[in-house]
Amino acid sequence: MRSVDLIQKKRDGGELTASELTYLIDGYSRGDIPDYQLSAWAMAVFFRGMTPRETAALTLAMANSGDQVDLGPISGIKVDKHSTGGVGDKTTLIIAPLVASVGIPVAKMSGRGLGHTGGTIDKLESIEGFRTELSRERFMSQVSEIGLSIIGQSGNLAPADKKLYALRDVTATVESIPLIASSVMSKKIAAGADAIVLDVKTGSGAFMKTLEQSEQLAKAMVDIGTEVGKNTAAVISDMDQPLGFAIGNALEVQESIETLKGNGPEDLTELCLTLGAHMVVLGGKSDSVEAAKMLLREQIDNGAALEKFIAFVAAQGGDDTIADDPSRLPQAPVLVEIRSDGAGYVQAIEAEQLGLAAMLLGAGRATKDAAIDYAVGVKLRKKVGDAVQTGDSLAVLHARDHNESVHEVAERVRKAYTLSDVKPEARALLLSVVTAEGITRYSTYS
Amino acid sequence: MRSVDLIQKKRDGGELTASELTYLIDGYSRGDIPDYQLSAWAMAVFFRGMTPRETAALTLAMANSGDQVDLGPISGIKVDKHSTGGVGDKTTLIIAPLVASVGIPVAKMSGRGLGHTGGTIDKLESIEGFRTELSRERFMSQVSEIGLSIIGQSGNLAPADKKLYALRDVTATVESIPLIASSVMSKKIAAGADAIVLDVKTGSGAFMKTLEQSEQLAKAMVDIGTEVGKNTAAVISDMDQPLGFAIGNALEVQESIETLKGNGPEDLTELCLTLGAHMVVLGGKSDSVEAAKMLLREQIDNGAALEKFIAFVAAQGGDDTIADDPSRLPQAPVLVEIRSDGAGYVQAIEAEQLGLAAMLLGAGRATKDAAIDYAVGVKLRKKVGDAVQTGDSLAVLHARDHNESVHEVAERVRKAYTLSDVKPEARALLLSVVTAEGITRYSTYS
Repeated sequence: MRSVDLIQKKRDGGELTASELTYLIDGYSRGDIPDYQLSAWAMAVFFRGMTPRETAALTLAMANSGDQVDLGPISGIKVDKHSTGGVGDKTTLIIAPLVASVGIPVAKMSGRGLGHTGGTIDKLESIEGFRTELSRERFMSQVSEIGLSIIGQSGNLAPADKKLYALRDVTATVESIPLIASSVMSKKIAAGADAIVLDVKTGSGAFMKTLEQSEQLAKAMVDIGTEVGKNTAAVISDMDQPLGFAIGNALEVQESIETLKGNGPEDLTELCLTLGAHMVVLGGKSDSVEAAKMLLREQIDNGAALEKFIAFVAAQGGDDTIADDPSRLPQAPVLVEIRSDGAGYVQAIEAEQLGLAAMLLGAGRATKDAAIDYAVGVKLRKKVGDAVQTGDSLAVLHARDHNESVHEVAERVRKAYTLSDVKPEARALLLSVVTAEGITRYSTYS
Repeated sequence: MRSVDLIQKKRDGGELTASELTYLIDGYSRGDIPDYQLSAWAMAVFFRGMTPRETAALTLAMANSGDQVDLGPISGIKVDKHSTGGVGDKTTLIIAPLVASVGIPVAKMSGRGLGHTGGTIDKLESIEGFRTELSRERFMSQVSEIGLSIIGQSGNLAPADKKLYALRDVTATVESIPLIASSVMSKKIAAGADAIVLDVKTGSGAFMKTLEQSEQLAKAMVDIGTEVGKNTAAVISDMDQPLGFAIGNALEVQESIETLKGNGPEDLTELCLTLGAHMVVLGGKSDSVEAAKMLLREQIDNGAALEKFIAFVAAQGGDDTIADDPSRLPQAPVLVEIRSDGAGYVQAIEAEQLGLAAMLLGAGRATKDAAIDYAVGVKLRKKVGDAVQTGDSLAVLHARDHNESVHEVAERVRKAYTLSDVKPEARALLLSVVTAEGITRYSTYS
């Protein structure tokens, strides 16, 4: 087998076999096949696409390129969740204890934030004492005991994906749906899940800007799951504005606790219930998404979800009094109200700008090794559709000090808001569900 | 400027500017831009193509990447010729003295053969004493004195093209018309020609298999010439069978001498007169191709072309008695007649198979550093359209000895011939002419 022939086959619209793709990925991992051949192949994939069979074979080859977590010793169907990333996305903090409270084992590895998006591990570490590095044994036994553990990505999961992603990033081959789909799924498969629920964002604040693209990506990922025998479902939701009101590590933990208490923002609560319900169905604890959603709402109302969160924080060494007293979370010393210089209705909020604002305050990392300030961030006061008077507060900055750069961040946040004279039409949060059966738009049945 | 942005621009169908292409090629030459970015860009070019402006800019960037020959001291319009390569192609040996005999200065650098195609330099070196390595001064003064010199490619001509071609070869990005065109033209431009005539082969024995593809390639090269101010014309000819009867270094020199004497094969003579005529027109020595052709035929009939060849061989130290006594060229000790095992008409001859046969006998190089046997080769007795009786000789092998491998080569040659019961329709040798004015098919005016 010669790599150049495989590149040519793809270039000319052919379908590579599983053994051909394994040859490419294994050779690339070992360093036997050079970067310049993989980048040419990736560009050919950009133009030619891949069949579902090819995409699944690529995914497995990448999943097999490093460690593979064996969650077998934990009984039950292990359902993982993955988000394509977004601003103010704290759903894992809420969904993990929520579904664990009905007996779905959650053994999750999460990442840190980079750029304008935050990471679950950073958020958890804003809780005093919380440990995100546990031994494999400790991790497994905690899931067996309390049904839930979340740790940082450890070991060497799908290194071929990591290497290929870095190459795609510098060769303009990121924006290929089968390559994005296989990248996400290879890590999920290597992490040992039996079933996967995907939280796919769409809109201005997301990687996929249109619903159609997002549906294609979701379908590609669901197809991979189906092909490799892991039940997979995807929920596509609007990311035209940040999720909830809080952006920043401790601020998001606090909002998550409020949501687990039943006092959370409507959009965040709805998305968590929906994603959680799909996990409950794939985990075999309910026959329908609607029934599962009612079950989860009950777990919030009866306090079981919050109780699971407290047990989880305690098990990983965190301060478990924060649920009763959120002021024990890191608090920023300086609050800066951002007041509107006009009146009207909020027409749009640029989520990415708010993510960048939080990062600039210190909540996120501009580079991989930067330090994080857990206390800082942005708290929105107004969301899309809200009426605003001149002088009303649009948002509050939670800052470390009151210097020039905070002033710049304030301007950035103000500019992220667009006001209009007419109230914008209400936008649906939930847009589509993609399963092995196909794509269903919410609009067609609500 | 960032390479990744330029790759993406091409990927998305944009047109790169001259400074963007220069940035890519210069950076690549220096080693600042890595292989993996150029290969991704080349694959994007494969799918998106390049505009004539882009192709010309790429060509100039590659031409400027190394030495540039200055033919200025030689008076007159220097017209170069380039062939896209073929089996039994000895046209340079004939055309160079032919056009030099009417006052077109020929200062030519040629290459060696690789694989199934031969090289002009190897053919010339089959003449005892012939030197193909001359100093730049000697080369220039010889052209000034006798109007003609042919030497091996020396110096560092278009090194960026060489580097990019090697990369394309292993990344399935060879088959891109703008990339092929710019590769050819960058070397011709660096070699200092004022005008260029291109001998583009089409058919089973050529790189371009269809007339349409060959016309596109020719047009791309002519467009580059036009864009950079070098008059360029291309003649597209049939390469469905070898040119002439001789394949192999000394055998081809002998056939060239016969052609210069007016006794050459019809196809070879016709192609040389046509290509030569275009050179004469571009060199300003005639107003029309037809008049130039008559002029050149006269130079053969009156012996001036042969005389120029003899002067050229003598000037470069070669045995100039070979024109009178071709037996002084290297002779193979073993002749093997290949007899037909059937009767009919020759329907087709696979040129590439005959080129490989000659190479296997020792006439060519399988690898870059292999030695060559100047005496050996294949001499055809029958060409397409000829009637064949069982037992007739199809071809003669000129071999070094009579071993097992010669037997295999004989089988290969026999299999390269396809016979049929009906006489095939006569095929035209000359198919199209491409100039700055456009594409003209011979069939439309003959």
